[in-house]
Amino acid sequence: MESLELLKLLQAVKDKKLSPHEALRQVKHLPFEDLDFAKVDHHRALRQGFTEVVFAKGKTPGQVREIVRAMLDKKGSKHNVLITRAGEKTFAVVKSLSKAAKFYPLSGVIEIERNREIAGKGLIVVVSAGTSDIPVAEEALVTAQAMGNRAEHLYDVGVAGIHRLLQHRDKLGEARVIICVAGMEGALPSVVGGLVGVPVIAVPTSVGYGASFDGVAALLGMLNSCASNVTVVNIDNGFGAASVASCINRLP
Amino acid sequence: MESLELLKLLQAVKDKKLSPHEALRQVKHLPFEDLDFAKVDHHRALRQGFTEVVFAKGKTPGQVREIVRAMLDKKGSKHNVLITRAGEKTFAVVKSLSKAAKFYPLSGVIEIERNREIAGKGLIVVVSAGTSDIPVAEEALVTAQAMGNRAEHLYDVGVAGIHRLLQHRDKLGEARVIICVAGMEGALPSVVGGLVGVPVIAVPTSVGYGASFDGVAALLGMLNSCASNVTVVNIDNGFGAASVASCINRLP
Amino acid sequence: MESLELLKLLQAVKDKKLSPHEALRQVKHLPFEDLDFAKVDHHRALRQGFTEVVFAKGKTPGQVREIVRAMLDKKGSKHNVLITRAGEKTFAVVKSLSKAAKFYPLSGVIEIERNREIAGKGLIVVVSAGTSDIPVAEEALVTAQAMGNRAEHLYDVGVAGIHRLLQHRDKLGEARVIICVAGMEGALPSVVGGLVGVPVIAVPTSVGYGASFDGVAALLGMLNSCASNVTVVNIDNGFGAASVASCINRLP
Amino acid sequence: MESLELLKLLQAVKDKKLSPHEALRQVKHLPFEDLDFAKVDHHRALRQGFTEVVFAKGKTPGQVREIVRAMLDKKGSKHNVLITRAGEKTFAVVKSLSKAAKFYPLSGVIEIERNREIAGKGLIVVVSAGTSDIPVAEEALVTAQAMGNRAEHLYDVGVAGIHRLLQHRDKLGEARVIICVAGMEGALPSVVGGLVGVPVIAVPTSVGYGASFDGVAALLGMLNSCASNVTVVNIDNGFGAASVASCINRLP
Amino acid sequence: MESLELLKLLQAVKDKKLSPHEALRQVKHLPFEDLDFAKVDHHRALRQGFTEVVFAKGKTPGQVREIVRAMLDKKGSKHNVLITRAGEKTFAVVKSLSKAAKFYPLSGVIEIERNREIAGKGLIVVVSAGTSDIPVAEEALVTAQAMGNRAEHLYDVGVAGIHRLLQHRDKLGEARVIICVAGMEGALPSVVGGLVGVPVIAVPTSVGYGASFDGVAALLGMLNSCASNVTVVNIDNGFGAASVASCINRLP
Amino acid sequence: MESLELLKLLQAVKDKKLSPHEALRQVKHLPFEDLDFAKVDHHRALRQGFTEVVFAKGKTPGQVREIVRAMLDKKGSKHNVLITRAGEKTFAVVKSLSKAAKFYPLSGVIEIERNREIAGKGLIVVVSAGTSDIPVAEEALVTAQAMGNRAEHLYDVGVAGIHRLLQHRDKLGEARVIICVAGMEGALPSVVGGLVGVPVIAVPTSVGYGASFDGVAALLGMLNSCASNVTVVNIDNGFGAASVASCINRLP
Amino acid sequence: MESLELLKLLQAVKDKKLSPHEALRQVKHLPFEDLDFAKVDHHRALRQGFTEVVFAKGKTPGQVREIVRAMLDKKGSKHNVLITRAGEKTFAVVKSLSKAAKFYPLSGVIEIERNREIAGKGLIVVVSAGTSDIPVAEEALVTAQAMGNRAEHLYDVGVAGIHRLLQHRDKLGEARVIICVAGMEGALPSVVGGLVGVPVIAVPTSVGYGASFDGVAALLGMLNSCASNVTVVNIDNGFGAASVASCINRLP
Amino acid sequence: MESLELLKLLQAVKDKKLSPHEALRQVKHLPFEDLDFAKVDHHRALRQGFTEVVFAKGKTPGQVREIVRAMLDKKGSKHNVLITRAGEKTFAVVKSLSKAAKFYPLSGVIEIERNREIAGKGLIVVVSAGTSDIPVAEEALVTAQAMGNRAEHLYDVGVAGIHRLLQHRDKLGEARVIICVAGMEGALPSVVGGLVGVPVIAVPTSVGYGASFDGVAALLGMLNSCASNVTVVNIDNGFGAASVASCINRLP
Repeated sequence: MESLELLKLLQAVKDKKLSPHEALRQVKHLPFEDLDFAKVDHHRALRQGFTEVVFAKGKTPGQVREIVRAMLDKKGSKHNVLITRAGEKTFAVVKSLSKAAKFYPLSGVIEIERNREIAGKGLIVVVSAGTSDIPVAEEALVTAQAMGNRAEHLYDVGVAGIHRLLQHRDKLGEARVIICVAGMEGALPSVVGGLVGVPVIAVPTSVGYGASFDGVAALLGMLNSCASNVTVVNIDNGFGAASVASCINRLP
Repeated sequence: MESLELLKLLQAVKDKKLSPHEALRQVKHLPFEDLDFAKVDHHRALRQGFTEVVFAKGKTPGQVREIVRAMLDKKGSKHNVLITRAGEKTFAVVKSLSKAAKFYPLSGVIEIERNREIAGKGLIVVVSAGTSDIPVAEEALVTAQAMGNRAEHLYDVGVAGIHRLLQHRDKLGEARVIICVAGMEGALPSVVGGLVGVPVIAVPTSVGYGASFDGVAALLGMLNSCASNVTVVNIDNGFGAASVASCINRLP
Repeated sequence: MESLELLKLLQAVKDKKLSPHEALRQVKHLPFEDLDFAKVDHHRALRQGFTEVVFAKGKTPGQVREIVRAMLDKKGSKHNVLITRAGEKTFAVVKSLSKAAKFYPLSGVIEIERNREIAGKGLIVVVSAGTSDIPVAEEALVTAQAMGNRAEHLYDVGVAGIHRLLQHRDKLGEARVIICVAGMEGALPSVVGGLVGVPVIAVPTSVGYGASFDGVAALLGMLNSCASNVTVVNIDNGFGAASVASCINRLP
Repeated sequence: MESLELLKLLQAVKDKKLSPHEALRQVKHLPFEDLDFAKVDHHRALRQGFTEVVFAKGKTPGQVREIVRAMLDKKGSKHNVLITRAGEKTFAVVKSLSKAAKFYPLSGVIEIERNREIAGKGLIVVVSAGTSDIPVAEEALVTAQAMGNRAEHLYDVGVAGIHRLLQHRDKLGEARVIICVAGMEGALPSVVGGLVGVPVIAVPTSVGYGASFDGVAALLGMLNSCASNVTVVNIDNGFGAASVASCINRLP
Repeated sequence: MESLELLKLLQAVKDKKLSPHEALRQVKHLPFEDLDFAKVDHHRALRQGFTEVVFAKGKTPGQVREIVRAMLDKKGSKHNVLITRAGEKTFAVVKSLSKAAKFYPLSGVIEIERNREIAGKGLIVVVSAGTSDIPVAEEALVTAQAMGNRAEHLYDVGVAGIHRLLQHRDKLGEARVIICVAGMEGALPSVVGGLVGVPVIAVPTSVGYGASFDGVAALLGMLNSCASNVTVVNIDNGFGAASVASCINRLP
Repeated sequence: MESLELLKLLQAVKDKKLSPHEALRQVKHLPFEDLDFAKVDHHRALRQGFTEVVFAKGKTPGQVREIVRAMLDKKGSKHNVLITRAGEKTFAVVKSLSKAAKFYPLSGVIEIERNREIAGKGLIVVVSAGTSDIPVAEEALVTAQAMGNRAEHLYDVGVAGIHRLLQHRDKLGEARVIICVAGMEGALPSVVGGLVGVPVIAVPTSVGYGASFDGVAALLGMLNSCASNVTVVNIDNGFGAASVASCINRLP
Repeated sequence: MESLELLKLLQAVKDKKLSPHEALRQVKHLPFEDLDFAKVDHHRALRQGFTEVVFAKGKTPGQVREIVRAMLDKKGSKHNVLITRAGEKTFAVVKSLSKAAKFYPLSGVIEIERNREIAGKGLIVVVSAGTSDIPVAEEALVTAQAMGNRAEHLYDVGVAGIHRLLQHRDKLGEARVIICVAGMEGALPSVVGGLVGVPVIAVPTSVGYGASFDGVAALLGMLNSCASNVTVVNIDNGFGAASVASCINRLP
Repeated sequence: MESLELLKLLQAVKDKKLSPHEALRQVKHLPFEDLDFAKVDHHRALRQGFTEVVFAKGKTPGQVREIVRAMLDKKGSKHNVLITRAGEKTFAVVKSLSKAAKFYPLSGVIEIERNREIAGKGLIVVVSAGTSDIPVAEEALVTAQAMGNRAEHLYDVGVAGIHRLLQHRDKLGEARVIICVAGMEGALPSVVGGLVGVPVIAVPTSVGYGASFDGVAALLGMLNSCASNVTVVNIDNGFGAASVASCINRLP
């Protein structure tokens, strides 16, 4: 559809209604997407597992309702809908639009599942260190699942009790991608990275106090990881980690 | 091999030379790798594409020579040898050990290629913004190749001349993993991430002056990328980016 | 008027009521504006497009009312009145003073238009990246208009979807000055700066979380912009950006 | 020239050698600049006053020679050539290419003047605070002149001796754009901005010690300026300030 | 108990019900604590003086109740129970579980004393500088006591009134470990460290304003202490300081 | 009084009830203030102009009442009482203790004047830049007066309108000490310091937004002041500035 | 002398050679110092004790020679000459100009004493903590003396050996102003400030390593001092501290 | 010896040569150490294991020689002499004073052993992560030994290869105090702390690049350790860690 205008123009040249020079001039003023940027959008869809995402923070429940309604009304689309950083009120309005809406209160994620197809090739394992890291881990877990991946969560495997982590080596060994969520000193990804041969996406959390500086200590720890299969996303960015993990997991 | 000792112990129990209780006591004092940590090392090898790596910074040429000699003397091993952050003098001693040694002076990488097998499934594209980012990009490129990947480099595609980047969209579209190297404002990974559907590993460089704060501006820019397929490694860490990219590229 | 006192003094010298030495002593104790500082104020007026500005943050609605009343009571003045960072209550009291008062709730700007004359020579285009940057962009837009400029707003043209920005190249090409508002990685001004030949005023916003550090990431990105027509103002300073843009746009 | 390929394609459609649909497919694969990005480059030239610029830092004298030789060899071009952050050795090789090359040792700028035409409409005044700010001020001054502007320099007008600044009010009043260079507390742009009605480009310098943090104190001071006609560029970025000033000064 | 499974396995080998090779395979899949990690937990208990600890911040009163109920229900255990960073509501639910629960409102510590045995060898003295440091000092004091130590508190002995500190030299001289709690410039540990021959655990507090940066000034001061018997814990970490002090005080 | 115990001891030696050696042993265990630390307290009183000070922040109104009651009950003392950072409720309880209590709501200072004697030798002038700096300036002004100094306030003399400052040169010339209160870029002390020959105490305020970083920009600006008669106190520390100014003003 | 021109102008009015209106116009164009800014310079001289100062850092020996020669050639001037941050070579050229030149190699100060008059009223005591702080302390000491003050130095009185400081209480008690130089934790000014009743100028030094951050730890410690007679100057700014101390010491 | 003067004074009172009141006055002016501060020094000696320490950095070889000569000449003293942060030249001059001098070139420590007595009760184990951390670990090791402790070093036990650490659990279990040296992410102390029940002194090192910020990442990681037996010293402060460890190890 987006190339229709260009096509018409070419047709006019063929029909001699337009000289090549005049056509050239007009091509230069076509909006860009009339050329081939649909490919870009296609990439975007592929990358997110045919999931539509709304970042609810800073939007009113009413604004979220309008966006979600438009998503649900789109004909032929069966994408899962994911709303992150939402509250109870936003959930109420979304629920009124779709009975399938499910709320995860710890992380504030709302999911409307419309497509249960698994598109990722392997398992994504989300590992988290302390109780307070669970909200971020949950955001990663639900996002990964909504994007069409098998995903599981290992809780409470901090580095100061290394045996709890080592007990789960088999599960870690099953993963195709690992998401590692930790606050405070952020040491977990280094230890996990040393135990496995797959990519580890590290998510620092703002959990902690004093010299944790709202997640900066964990962020720096992860950036300096001595394990060479670790990369890092922004503080508390569980969604982003799952997005990248899903992108990796879909690689053919 | 690493479980031999445990096997002998179990055999002794079977042969009644050792009581189960005494065996239990001895198991607890076995060094850990006698159990099954070889699997860990195996992972490590898999992950790095059967490449042996030496970080030369802070080591004398003599120290590097001893390490490399040991690597070359290992029987049956045909791993590529990679020495990063090395200087001319270190290259001279390595060259005396192996005529195959090749030096990349911009990045200070030395490579001894002994295995041309391609183990990665797709293409790794290294994109860099300015002339001064090339050393870090070269470290990433040579590392990716030494780890058994096809890898190419797109030079000089900064965001302030967006058309140069857009010209290379086809090449970007061929990549299975992209490494994006940029200093100053570190905006390149966001733009590249928006154009493709594969994972983008962002490497901030310490290039710049004043408020670039030796790469901190680029690092923060990348961590805050609005493209959801971007992850980040440490400033100037071309090796680490290639390591992760290679790890992703080997995923079956 | 401001030199009256000095004139009287000189007249007294002429009339020999005052010796030159005594006059010299008195000149040294004249308040400064009695010399020629009115010129300074004149500049100020020119620069702000004959607009009177109140920064409402930290002032009570009552205090704002008194200041605005004084502005409206000034004889002969037909300056537009602009009140920034105001809330609903402040708007109520201002509305009671002037029916022409108009409130922009996203940015908290109140405008009393009394002069529709266009003083700026060209068009000021305000470009913003994400939905959450709109309040700052709106402050810039309304300020630019109140200061006597034609001004327009391009929404939602972030760098991770570069084609949306490129679609608007014609509009960007019409601008005499561009104001570029962006949070997170702050990459937009570099890309925009590379597309146009006019000055770009970059405004970092405090939008983001984690390593955005309340706008610091965007600020650093903009200061390190590789486009050489970009300058920067303080985080969230939409008013300041419009002020400078207006000052540039009025240059003969 | 850059649209030749597209023109040929359109001609082929006219000549019925190519169907409109096939032409559409081929257009989508044209390199971008074949469409209309020359316009971008044109902008770039306009913006920099037909000046060719080389950033010499991090390049060898040999590399600079090759780049400059190519510039000088370009037929028909009479652009001024500007080389910033260069040393004595680089100057020697440039001098051997062109006798017109002139070296400014304080700032490390080399200029090859080939075009004395004044393209800017008004005067750019560069104001600097202390002796140690002169190198950055000189970079700004020479850049502004090479880009086709009339430009002058006011030395040593720091805020702790306010009368020295006030003596120059007439000169400040003549400027169309002011560049204000200051280290330490970076207060000069606020004072200057209050005295004039034109845009002030503030350049923090890394001059100072201790809590100046290599220019951060000055940078923050300038970003927080209470004068509303001040914008800021990166620390020590005299070139960037002159670039923006020149861009403003060329506005019709 | 934790090695029972391994013992059974060895017994099966002895009984020829399992071949050594099969046993080897099974050993590798045993959960780790079945080997000997109970020793780790034993260490943990020793270290904390048989005290069970709950960090209440970020947990609902209901969650704390469940955790504490489980602790109290554990048969044979007579450990003291310590709940840190709790509020009034949490205290109410804990009080309903155990009448022995005692609340320290300044620090938010709840203690259920079930064991009055003194396990530490000497006296722990908690020294604090200003009134506002008392909450953190109280957390340290109650923790130290709950972990089975004699512990006392010296109040209000800041460095700007050095004589108040010197009056208490005898008490300082009695201590086996000193905990030094101070905000603002954090100078107290240096002075105290110079007066005694025992380890000093320094706790920076977030007390202060402006350039105290929520405890960073105190933290840096303590890390740079010129007294060589000073070590540091995180800002406001009274619990951690007491934990370490208790660990030292129990050394035989 | 504080040396009474030592005197008794010496008397006992004279009376031969105590041997010199035994007396020596006892002296070593005397509390320190029994020697001569009263001198220290005397200094403290002198320094603060016989003013008793309570820092109310973090204290309940009840706690402040008890402290103030004790001050008022002290026999023979006629010191002024100063309570800083207090709220309405605290003022109510203080007012119930003393009808003379006076509240300054902008700064939250409560003063009970009991002594109108002027102890300082000259005039302290408090200069402030913007409306929002007035609370800190008021804290300085009231403190200076309560400590027995003549003190005056010059409002709204920011550096971007330099003529307003210059108008007040005569008043500045009368001062023996100047307190300079400014937020944002903190440039005022440099300009004022250049106009006078007396010490200038600079107080950065947390006024501003974005890159003012709650007063850090102003603090750094002041520490880097190019005027050599400027010293700095903590952000928002109006009390401290007045304390130092008073200390200087009392120098004979 | 500086008002001569204005006087002539007034004389002309008196003589009716100039109308008051024309004189008014001419007054507005007089350079500022023609009015009364000599008073400013006079202040400057008073403040610095009739000392001429050259900051040698960043100047060549030749440049320093020219400046110093001009100072020495000024007729009638008998000011002391002070050159700070100089090296051996600069001293050699200065020595060749004046045999009286004296070099302090630790601090790099050169002094040419031409006036031994004591202008300060009391004693300035410079207290320093460790051996490495001596260069900064020496800069302060020599500057204070060159500016016409009696000044003494107490060495090696760090807070971790508080008795060494207390031994010097009598000397501290003699001071009219104290300069307190300390690196690392910067605690000395707080302790000293608590012992005396006079102003304490705190100078943080860049001495230390790791978390001293080149003097930032000491700077923050001093800004947060709990002693209310402490103010702070920039890191390593011994000259500035002595300048302020001298300014205070000259107060009548 | 230090109380002789006080004794004489008391004797004079006994002999009626001095009235008690006059004696009181004189006591107040005695230097402090005449009372009982020798006890402080005694503490210092006890704490450092009768070791004399020289910090050589910033001292010339000649200065170190004089200090060491004085130490060796002290009659009756048999303390070990420790010189830290020294170079080859300093070692040469020390060697010429004492043949027993031994140099550790990695860390720059020189030791003159004169006393082999073991004063610490248990074993100090120094654990280090990477090759580049060895210099700091060596400083800690040699210091601990020179202070009279048994001390051992475990090399190369980073967290990314957790099995290497676990192999050494028995050695860790023997320690009475552990010193944990690590750069980069600084995660080692958390893991080690979780494995043992004794105090762990964490030493961040400045090893790393980019976002390690010269040891800040490791420092923050350690301060946020989730293991409650970890305390922290300054970056690279191996000496300080050993000092504290020795102080703990000597506790009876």
